[in-house]
Amino acid sequence: MKGIKRIAIVGPGRVANHLAPAFKEQGITITGIYGRDAEEATRLSKKVESPIIGDIGKPIGADLILLCVSDDSIAEIAEQLSPDNKAIVAHTSGAVPMSAIPDHLRRGVFYPLQSFSADKKIVWENVPFCIEAESDDDVNSLGSIAEMLSSKIYILSSEQRKSLHLAAVFANNFANLMFEFSEELLEKAGIDRSILHPLILETANKVLMQKASQSQTGPASRGDIETIKAHRELLGEGSNFRVIYDLLTQEIYDRNHHKKL
Amino acid sequence: MKGIKRIAIVGPGRVANHLAPAFKEQGITITGIYGRDAEEATRLSKKVESPIIGDIGKPIGADLILLCVSDDSIAEIAEQLSPDNKAIVAHTSGAVPMSAIPDHLRRGVFYPLQSFSADKKIVWENVPFCIEAESDDDVNSLGSIAEMLSSKIYILSSEQRKSLHLAAVFANNFANLMFEFSEELLEKAGIDRSILHPLILETANKVLMQKASQSQTGPASRGDIETIKAHRELLGEGSNFRVIYDLLTQEIYDRNHHKKL
Repeated sequence: MKGIKRIAIVGPGRVANHLAPAFKEQGITITGIYGRDAEEATRLSKKVESPIIGDIGKPIGADLILLCVSDDSIAEIAEQLSPDNKAIVAHTSGAVPMSAIPDHLRRGVFYPLQSFSADKKIVWENVPFCIEAESDDDVNSLGSIAEMLSSKIYILSSEQRKSLHLAAVFANNFANLMFEFSEELLEKAGIDRSILHPLILETANKVLMQKASQSQTGPASRGDIETIKAHRELLGEGSNFRVIYDLLTQEIYDRNHHKKL
Repeated sequence: MKGIKRIAIVGPGRVANHLAPAFKEQGITITGIYGRDAEEATRLSKKVESPIIGDIGKPIGADLILLCVSDDSIAEIAEQLSPDNKAIVAHTSGAVPMSAIPDHLRRGVFYPLQSFSADKKIVWENVPFCIEAESDDDVNSLGSIAEMLSSKIYILSSEQRKSLHLAAVFANNFANLMFEFSEELLEKAGIDRSILHPLILETANKVLMQKASQSQTGPASRGDIETIKAHRELLGEGSNFRVIYDLLTQEIYDRNHHKKL
């Protein structure tokens, strides 16, 4: 086989709904859609003009079977696939090792590192794709279809991808929680949340220019005890806010002053 | 007096080095620079072609005296100013109330909400300016010179500004700490930190579109216990990383599932 021209999709959820139409636009044939939720599967199959796969226990006609299912379903679904499948069987998860797919299959990983919203269109060009497979040929095949969508291709081991996924939790989920906190403080003070948007953009843009540790500013990194006191007072005792404030303030302080507050 | 045409700068630090040249470009005359560090003061005075102020105890010829000094010096420096000054005396701090300036002066606040780096040029157009003063006339005067630089003018009380400053610590310093953590995890795994840049930009851009609480994704918000377990294992027991991971994960989980992990 030279390259991947036909893809079957297992799991018609959010990731599949973004990926399948993008592949179709690149001239890839979507040879089948499988989903336990018949309604979801039908909707995606219409969107990409592809038949429904009735029985995933039979060999599937495709060069790549893409498992776009939830992390804890990957092993279970992959177990159901026939060992007679010729296709690469790749999952799309950041957190799950390639070994979750049984080794009698031609296994791989095809992980787009992005936070997918149901309603927001993805600009694929900037999405990093993390590829793993057992042979160089399969790495190249997966890399080639990733390159149809993006210029950012990374070949990572399962171990590396696990660290990357955790790093993404800090950079995305936890940073977003910080933005949530700030919006709640503003709402309570009767200030429109848009006031912080330029600062949030600036914070993100700085990380692109230099390491985050070089951009740190604020009362904790300056060791400005008076301002920290005032903040703690404002947060009030016993709130989760304050526990988190104290812990993160201490961490920044330690990194910049090397002693206890 | 109609409007502010002459500004004196007290404190030739980072904020002054950004603000004074920007005002000069707008045709404002910088009538004097005062700094306890003679070298810093001289450098800024040359930059904006302004004389050095020798004695800040004497009345200063200006429409606005801008105190660009550190938070804990504002009260002390303002005390030294002559009560005969006709100018508005405004500080540039987010955390300090207007009342830190003695009430025999015509006091005000002129707070640009941005994270100033020594080496990065500010795009003023998007910087929110937070204004406070005791008379409507002075609010208008301060607002007018802010409008020379930016389209985002907010009139906030000292109480509101205090909440805003705390919110900015979450949105900037703490979010940046999350980026630091993620870079350290990547470095340890031998992955280039640029892999997370598209996700970081996407995270920030989403906050501009909708409330952060509506953008939350990831294992904690999904209640994906297996992935959380794997992350905790990777972080190892007893690390600060892990304590922070647990606390933030619990917080996101609570917000989305309303029960204990």
